[in-house]
Amino acid sequence: MAKSRSAFSVQRSEQHAAHSTRHAARNGGMVDVSAKNITLRTAKASSSIVLGDEAFQTLTEGTCIKGDVLATGKVAAIMAVKSTPAIIPMCHPIPIEAVDVEFKLNEPEKSVTTIVTVKSSGKTGVEMEALVGASAASLTIYDMLKYKGRDMVVTETKLLEKTGGKSGSYKRPD
Amino acid sequence: MAKSRSAFSVQRSEQHAAHSTRHAARNGGMVDVSAKNITLRTAKASSSIVLGDEAFQTLTEGTCIKGDVLATGKVAAIMAVKSTPAIIPMCHPIPIEAVDVEFKLNEPEKSVTTIVTVKSSGKTGVEMEALVGASAASLTIYDMLKYKGRDMVVTETKLLEKTGGKSGSYKRPD
Amino acid sequence: MAKSRSAFSVQRSEQHAAHSTRHAARNGGMVDVSAKNITLRTAKASSSIVLGDEAFQTLTEGTCIKGDVLATGKVAAIMAVKSTPAIIPMCHPIPIEAVDVEFKLNEPEKSVTTIVTVKSSGKTGVEMEALVGASAASLTIYDMLKYKGRDMVVTETKLLEKTGGKSGSYKRPD
Amino acid sequence: MAKSRSAFSVQRSEQHAAHSTRHAARNGGMVDVSAKNITLRTAKASSSIVLGDEAFQTLTEGTCIKGDVLATGKVAAIMAVKSTPAIIPMCHPIPIEAVDVEFKLNEPEKSVTTIVTVKSSGKTGVEMEALVGASAASLTIYDMLKYKGRDMVVTETKLLEKTGGKSGSYKRPD
Amino acid sequence: MAKSRSAFSVQRSEQHAAHSTRHAARNGGMVDVSAKNITLRTAKASSSIVLGDEAFQTLTEGTCIKGDVLATGKVAAIMAVKSTPAIIPMCHPIPIEAVDVEFKLNEPEKSVTTIVTVKSSGKTGVEMEALVGASAASLTIYDMLKYKGRDMVVTETKLLEKTGGKSGSYKRPD
Amino acid sequence: MAKSRSAFSVQRSEQHAAHSTRHAARNGGMVDVSAKNITLRTAKASSSIVLGDEAFQTLTEGTCIKGDVLATGKVAAIMAVKSTPAIIPMCHPIPIEAVDVEFKLNEPEKSVTTIVTVKSSGKTGVEMEALVGASAASLTIYDMLKYKGRDMVVTETKLLEKTGGKSGSYKRPD
Repeated sequence: MAKSRSAFSVQRSEQHAAHSTRHAARNGGMVDVSAKNITLRTAKASSSIVLGDEAFQTLTEGTCIKGDVLATGKVAAIMAVKSTPAIIPMCHPIPIEAVDVEFKLNEPEKSVTTIVTVKSSGKTGVEMEALVGASAASLTIYDMLKYKGRDMVVTETKLLEKTGGKSGSYKRPD
Repeated sequence: MAKSRSAFSVQRSEQHAAHSTRHAARNGGMVDVSAKNITLRTAKASSSIVLGDEAFQTLTEGTCIKGDVLATGKVAAIMAVKSTPAIIPMCHPIPIEAVDVEFKLNEPEKSVTTIVTVKSSGKTGVEMEALVGASAASLTIYDMLKYKGRDMVVTETKLLEKTGGKSGSYKRPD
Repeated sequence: MAKSRSAFSVQRSEQHAAHSTRHAARNGGMVDVSAKNITLRTAKASSSIVLGDEAFQTLTEGTCIKGDVLATGKVAAIMAVKSTPAIIPMCHPIPIEAVDVEFKLNEPEKSVTTIVTVKSSGKTGVEMEALVGASAASLTIYDMLKYKGRDMVVTETKLLEKTGGKSGSYKRPD
Repeated sequence: MAKSRSAFSVQRSEQHAAHSTRHAARNGGMVDVSAKNITLRTAKASSSIVLGDEAFQTLTEGTCIKGDVLATGKVAAIMAVKSTPAIIPMCHPIPIEAVDVEFKLNEPEKSVTTIVTVKSSGKTGVEMEALVGASAASLTIYDMLKYKGRDMVVTETKLLEKTGGKSGSYKRPD
Repeated sequence: MAKSRSAFSVQRSEQHAAHSTRHAARNGGMVDVSAKNITLRTAKASSSIVLGDEAFQTLTEGTCIKGDVLATGKVAAIMAVKSTPAIIPMCHPIPIEAVDVEFKLNEPEKSVTTIVTVKSSGKTGVEMEALVGASAASLTIYDMLKYKGRDMVVTETKLLEKTGGKSGSYKRPD
Repeated sequence: MAKSRSAFSVQRSEQHAAHSTRHAARNGGMVDVSAKNITLRTAKASSSIVLGDEAFQTLTEGTCIKGDVLATGKVAAIMAVKSTPAIIPMCHPIPIEAVDVEFKLNEPEKSVTTIVTVKSSGKTGVEMEALVGASAASLTIYDMLKYKGRDMVVTETKLLEKTGGKSGSYKRPD
């Protein structure tokens, strides 16, 4: 019967509405860190990209037609660290007090590993900032060299270590 | 006489220039909060949107072709809170320590009210952040559902309460 | 029994995973407009804010300590129009070819209505841009004048009309 | 001799200056695409993250305290696609006409693979947009679940295929 | 008399309100370019900074503790070109199709001149983009070297030439 | 001989790679300020633009077709101050506690000088913020008035004074 289906449909809709509200209310948002202490926090993350022979040679010979690959990657990493709260939805905006970017070239693997270290005196950690910075470096290296072939792969992006904060230090097991 | 008009015009221009300078100098800019104390500040704001039957049903049944309406609205609200100093010209950039987003669905009115609560330990309040966040949620809900009809109206965006700071607490009278 | 519960749990988890994937895959994202025609599109939206006696007087007398209220609101509206794809998640970035901002002051209601008109030659409309711009103006007016009282309310933000595109013109019924 | 060293130093400095100028002038910048044709271009990229047992279970059971993991990751991916020219220095700002985000959960590996497909009608491709979007999704998933353990690794981010443009189609060999 | 003053005050307020509206309505906003033709437009702008002996030597010897000065300045210029509509309120967002950055070192003056050339196929010119990019390069060079003394001055920022568009070509007289 | 050249080439490549790594590692990044004290820091910078007769008259008569030139320049300056870490790569994001913008019109020179003063309680200074804000004001004035002639030149942008921090106060010698 059309009528009873309609009644049922409205009822279901009401249940749905109530459920949606509870569901949405239950699922937090940006975590409350207001009661935490301000302490020095550091994080170190790495991201590696395998370039292949031709792109790696272009990088090491400094002949990339788009400019200095690693200098551009370093600026991209630092600016991405600062943009992290605009990229990762639940990240708190925090003061960034230091960013260090180091590149390690691996000749046999034809790869570059970017290591980004971030420091902040605040109420929450900086591991997302370090991870976003390292990822931005890998992707910028990709962008600078993609005209030499698109088989490049960002092989591994990960937190290496962090210090500070209630959850204590973390160091990735080797 | 052309000559005297010209002379008058120059004189007026000089007066205008002096006036413009004084005028511009008189009208502040970003208010100086450097001497204020760092205290915990909170603000809660709401924004309501009336959807109409079809859009409301699409929301409650979870059948929006653009994705999860409320989850998207929540992310939009949180990111807009963080972007407030880039949207509202005289807003100070401040540390955001917590953002909570809650949705209330009103079946008879076919409306959604978004309530955004923001916390910050700083020298100035967060009411603009809460208002911007709630507005962004309403507008995102509109964007997700506008294919169901454009008669939707954001009916009311307002501060509900605030605490902290020299001006003391505010609670909107019911 | 621990064992059967465990088995059940894994099974449920697998179902969940499959469900989540399907759920996520089903719910679109940014709508595909690549096959649409480039046509001129316009949209006009308004946002009204009721100021109260004191704030309205401050506005009309031009004595706001933060500067020129309407000039600041106009710049905020125009810049927010341009930032729309960074505020509303599913909005396409589009060329903005014109933004007009008009203010209507209502003495009896002590209110300001901001009307924002946007033009674009593209594959999708500009109603979100107009709505975001009008909202930004109202919230900026609030920010400039909130030191005169926090009872101000943004009372209505809505699309007034739009032209262009496959869905044709829209004009809000009076 | 102080004098000759000084003379030598100046001379070296002049050579350096000339060299720096040539060096900087030689290394391009943002590639000139003004003479290219506007054609439809697509790109599909993926990024995978290995979560570990506990984080994977939290994801599949929908019990993350920060909210809906995949819905948040999807919004992050779409917004990052639009922010690509602000993250990758040499990327051209281009019209984004479609973004599709799909998640594949792998129960045995406890991993999530995000596949982002981007379309644009323009003079240059969208592979960086697809790669940045997929990376942002992986990092957002990490951020939502990092309270369940920091051993998560983004294992692989890569271009899957692209179409359009002078360089023709690309499809990653399996 | 209080009463007549009050009446006068209201009347004045009404006049003011009407005046403000007309004033605001009269003063445009973002200029309407929707009816213009899409043509190739180019602009070349320069910005010079006088560094002083020590900072100039640090630049030419490549010993700046903050990194490669000119490579960083180049990336800053290119990213600022792309951010122009977010920095200059009335600028239209336009497709940027090429950015070239060239540095000229002047040993006797201890200065660096940055020349930025921008191309776009659109309805409005790119001179603001070129000027913003050149300014950002000068200010970035300042930032990298300010630890060597704060007497540096950005001495001249100007348009050198532009082509395309209705207003025709411009070339600065020598 | 091809073979020995090839061997030489590989060897050179390895040396290059090692050199690039050391080079990149040596050149800092964002300076570490985490151990510095939080103190009140101020900076005042100016930027001047010579407008020419017609543009200067348009400014002083308030007849610019794009709107209020100085009010728009003021908003641009304040928003650019807040965007400084996104424009200048190595700048730390810091709390901005006050921005004051003052314009001085020089009738004989047909020029406008914008003076921006910034305050922050933090670990690093605000001179870049003041310089970026003053530059943005000059460029915005240029943009508002460029339809009156493109011979305008931003003639001088410089730090006037700064206070606070370990390096002590600076005041530009007259």
